[in-house]
Amino acid sequence: MIPTGFVRTLEIERPSLNNNTADAQRLERVIQSEFSAGHVRIPLALLKTLPSRLRKWGYKTKAVLFKDTDSWIVVDLLEPRSQTPILGAAVDIGTTRIVMSLINLETCNELAETGFDNPQAAIGPDVLTRIHYSNKPGGLVELNRLVIDGVNFHLDQMCRENGYVKEDIYLLTGAGNTAMTHLFLGIEAFEIIKEPYIPCVNIPNTFPAGQLGLDINPKAQVFLFPNIGSYFGGDLIAGIICGDIDQKTSPCLMVDVGTNAEIVVGSQDWLIACAGAAGPALEGGVSKMGMTAKPGVIDRVWIDPESKNLEIHTIDEEKPIGICGSGMIDLAASLFLSGRLNIQGRFSEDICKDELIEIDGIQYFILVDQHASGTGEHITLSQVDMNSLTSSKAAMYTILEVIVKNTAGLEFEDLEKFYVAGTFGSFINPVSAISIGMLPDLPLETFEVLGNTSLGGAKALLKNPDIFERIMKIRQSITYIELNVNQEFMNMFSGAKFYPHTDRARFPSIKVILK
Amino acid sequence: MIPTGFVRTLEIERPSLNNNTADAQRLERVIQSEFSAGHVRIPLALLKTLPSRLRKWGYKTKAVLFKDTDSWIVVDLLEPRSQTPILGAAVDIGTTRIVMSLINLETCNELAETGFDNPQAAIGPDVLTRIHYSNKPGGLVELNRLVIDGVNFHLDQMCRENGYVKEDIYLLTGAGNTAMTHLFLGIEAFEIIKEPYIPCVNIPNTFPAGQLGLDINPKAQVFLFPNIGSYFGGDLIAGIICGDIDQKTSPCLMVDVGTNAEIVVGSQDWLIACAGAAGPALEGGVSKMGMTAKPGVIDRVWIDPESKNLEIHTIDEEKPIGICGSGMIDLAASLFLSGRLNIQGRFSEDICKDELIEIDGIQYFILVDQHASGTGEHITLSQVDMNSLTSSKAAMYTILEVIVKNTAGLEFEDLEKFYVAGTFGSFINPVSAISIGMLPDLPLETFEVLGNTSLGGAKALLKNPDIFERIMKIRQSITYIELNVNQEFMNMFSGAKFYPHTDRARFPSIKVILK
Repeated sequence: MIPTGFVRTLEIERPSLNNNTADAQRLERVIQSEFSAGHVRIPLALLKTLPSRLRKWGYKTKAVLFKDTDSWIVVDLLEPRSQTPILGAAVDIGTTRIVMSLINLETCNELAETGFDNPQAAIGPDVLTRIHYSNKPGGLVELNRLVIDGVNFHLDQMCRENGYVKEDIYLLTGAGNTAMTHLFLGIEAFEIIKEPYIPCVNIPNTFPAGQLGLDINPKAQVFLFPNIGSYFGGDLIAGIICGDIDQKTSPCLMVDVGTNAEIVVGSQDWLIACAGAAGPALEGGVSKMGMTAKPGVIDRVWIDPESKNLEIHTIDEEKPIGICGSGMIDLAASLFLSGRLNIQGRFSEDICKDELIEIDGIQYFILVDQHASGTGEHITLSQVDMNSLTSSKAAMYTILEVIVKNTAGLEFEDLEKFYVAGTFGSFINPVSAISIGMLPDLPLETFEVLGNTSLGGAKALLKNPDIFERIMKIRQSITYIELNVNQEFMNMFSGAKFYPHTDRARFPSIKVILK
Repeated sequence: MIPTGFVRTLEIERPSLNNNTADAQRLERVIQSEFSAGHVRIPLALLKTLPSRLRKWGYKTKAVLFKDTDSWIVVDLLEPRSQTPILGAAVDIGTTRIVMSLINLETCNELAETGFDNPQAAIGPDVLTRIHYSNKPGGLVELNRLVIDGVNFHLDQMCRENGYVKEDIYLLTGAGNTAMTHLFLGIEAFEIIKEPYIPCVNIPNTFPAGQLGLDINPKAQVFLFPNIGSYFGGDLIAGIICGDIDQKTSPCLMVDVGTNAEIVVGSQDWLIACAGAAGPALEGGVSKMGMTAKPGVIDRVWIDPESKNLEIHTIDEEKPIGICGSGMIDLAASLFLSGRLNIQGRFSEDICKDELIEIDGIQYFILVDQHASGTGEHITLSQVDMNSLTSSKAAMYTILEVIVKNTAGLEFEDLEKFYVAGTFGSFINPVSAISIGMLPDLPLETFEVLGNTSLGGAKALLKNPDIFERIMKIRQSITYIELNVNQEFMNMFSGAKFYPHTDRARFPSIKVILK
């Protein structure tokens, strides 16, 4: 096995009367040559006993290294044939859920994965509530302690469950949105949500774990992915790394659909990023029926080819209790393709017939009858919800159009890959999203779901030191576009509010189905 | 007053919707521009409250900065009109004596100076004894504690005596020989004295004061001058800085005479260094009468022009109790110029007459009669002491000749300046040293005493950030010559053992006196 990660067995040049360079500098030289490194930082604690250890070990050592923005850090020096496990932890610092992975830094194998709800949810479910809370006396410290304690507890548990101890963890990498990253570091975050939306820090240094209160190896180092701004976080840079967008020869696009749609388009030559409001209907919790995934939630909807009835699938196949975002996109597509929804996005009374009820002048489409429902009530979608979804899908398409066509000067067809990132994105059925005109009508093989890119990026960095330079290069070179909602945007948006679009020629595959 | 040091009032660009760079990165930018800096490191503790403080202070701050090998460190950020004293401490980490100076980092004025005997003398007076002790269990920690406790105690005292508190000290710079530097950092030093004489570290990083146990401002940073090798320490680099040798257009020479003669010759274009044994007679403590300076010690000797008697001066003009190194050089010169010492360095019975006594077959020159002596005994110089001094002066001249002529390919006359560094060197009378053929016969204005160069270099760094780069450049570019004692050296050495030299043409000014 040729070592490629941050743990390598190094052989230091032996000193002689003709080579009286100090031990530390001879160690630095071999690190510089092994890692193509510049400056090397050896902590005082390791320096103190370096001479006797190098001699005892025959001028060989198994070294654990890591990167900082300005140098390489010697994390620890072990006996060359040491069998001590040397682990790294990758952390997706999600607003809702934190997912962590344990990596063997020598073999680069993944050993375990665990997830838990972000304990900051006790303060508030969303970023905004938490940042407001962080501005109260003691609030920041409390939020910081919540997430750090949670990470400490679950890292310890994950280690023990897999036959390790927490002291085996020498490196921790993490990615999250800008606010979550700030709260993880315990640094003031409230300017993030106040105009002009300024983070405290774009590029955090690599910090000793102890400084962050992380209870792992006392020599461990911690690095969090940098951000581009308050609304373009390290999670997005992790996404670019996961999709290798910064290494592609042809342009690719990545979209992370949440409350905001964060979009990156580019290749090895250039990267453009933009974050825009995709609208509330795409995330559970805002729409009356929108729900986060749990048993009984409708996650897929389709049209039975024979009966033309709508068919549903629920999580764990339990009785339906509501619908989640991806299910809602399926539902809208099914309603439109079956004629129940017209091109203006309004329910068609002619087609829906008794699937529609009207309460207080608002029409509701009954997806599940009260007798089949797990709640004892109809599961419905109102015209109001529908309008909200229409706005959302139009916003998403318009943002994609603006960034791909107006900003990058490309056509959708020029995109080699269309990556969908984020938990929500993982569940979207591209066919449905294309059918309603939310995503462009590209060949299905163009679409690729990246899954948990924050975790993926953090893991990739633990396995490959080169990723660090890529992260810094991405941060340095990316052009961040503040989405300009002007008259031209509104004109484009108006067209995109139709199903799939006023210009149906843009969706040839849907045209075929509708015929 | 235009600030030039490490403390500057910085104005940070205000954020706006068009400039959403994070606070930390906007601070970095102004530091990079103000100091022509590369990477900037902001400690986590300062990052945590950066946004609120920048806003409260109107985007201005009085910043205390410092350098590390790989970056600039933000030591502290103060309110822009803060009146808190911001001090630096420069430390000469001498084997025998530690001298410290307090500097106002804003005005670059010197506020106080203090000195005390290196408390490690309790373990042993010399480097060798201490390093052997450091290799015993607990020895290194004890030696380290002795020096650090001493520095802490005297810094605190010096601060209080001058109306400051120790927390006012934000920076500490120190220079000393390689062994003293290692013991100050608490890092293993024993390989320094074992072939092939390898220091643990050539270039120590800048360390937080707390890591070194220094009880000053908790945010303070500490930097010790780097070394070239075990026998060419940071004290010598400090000397080069003091003499500005690295900035001279014509070659200059600096010699630090101690137990070893450490020599640097060079200019802005090149620097050659060499360390060689100058022999024991030049330092007090080895020769029977050689003493370190204290009241009653003979520090100057000269010939009365009328009586041709030897005249003496003692420190504090007390009754003579012995002679120090510089006095011994004066004495040898006086003996030689008065004919009491022949060109072979032997006492002349014809001239000395009853100034000589013989005990156990060894001749002693009576410098002070027992009746005039403070000890009640004759103060004498034996032929054995004299031979030892002859070897020392010959060694010194030969080393100078080898490095200037054979290595650098220059003549002594090419030297623009001949700097004498070190405490001992400060007291040497160049005329005497030339008379005995220890130093080359150059115009007296060529010689310049630099005084305490370790302290001088450490102070210079506190006042001027550019010095840091000069130190690193010196360390990088200096060529260290291991003195090769071969047949050619021994031939040159033989000639130099005569007074002033077998080739008297080299000392025209002495030739004139002798005529």
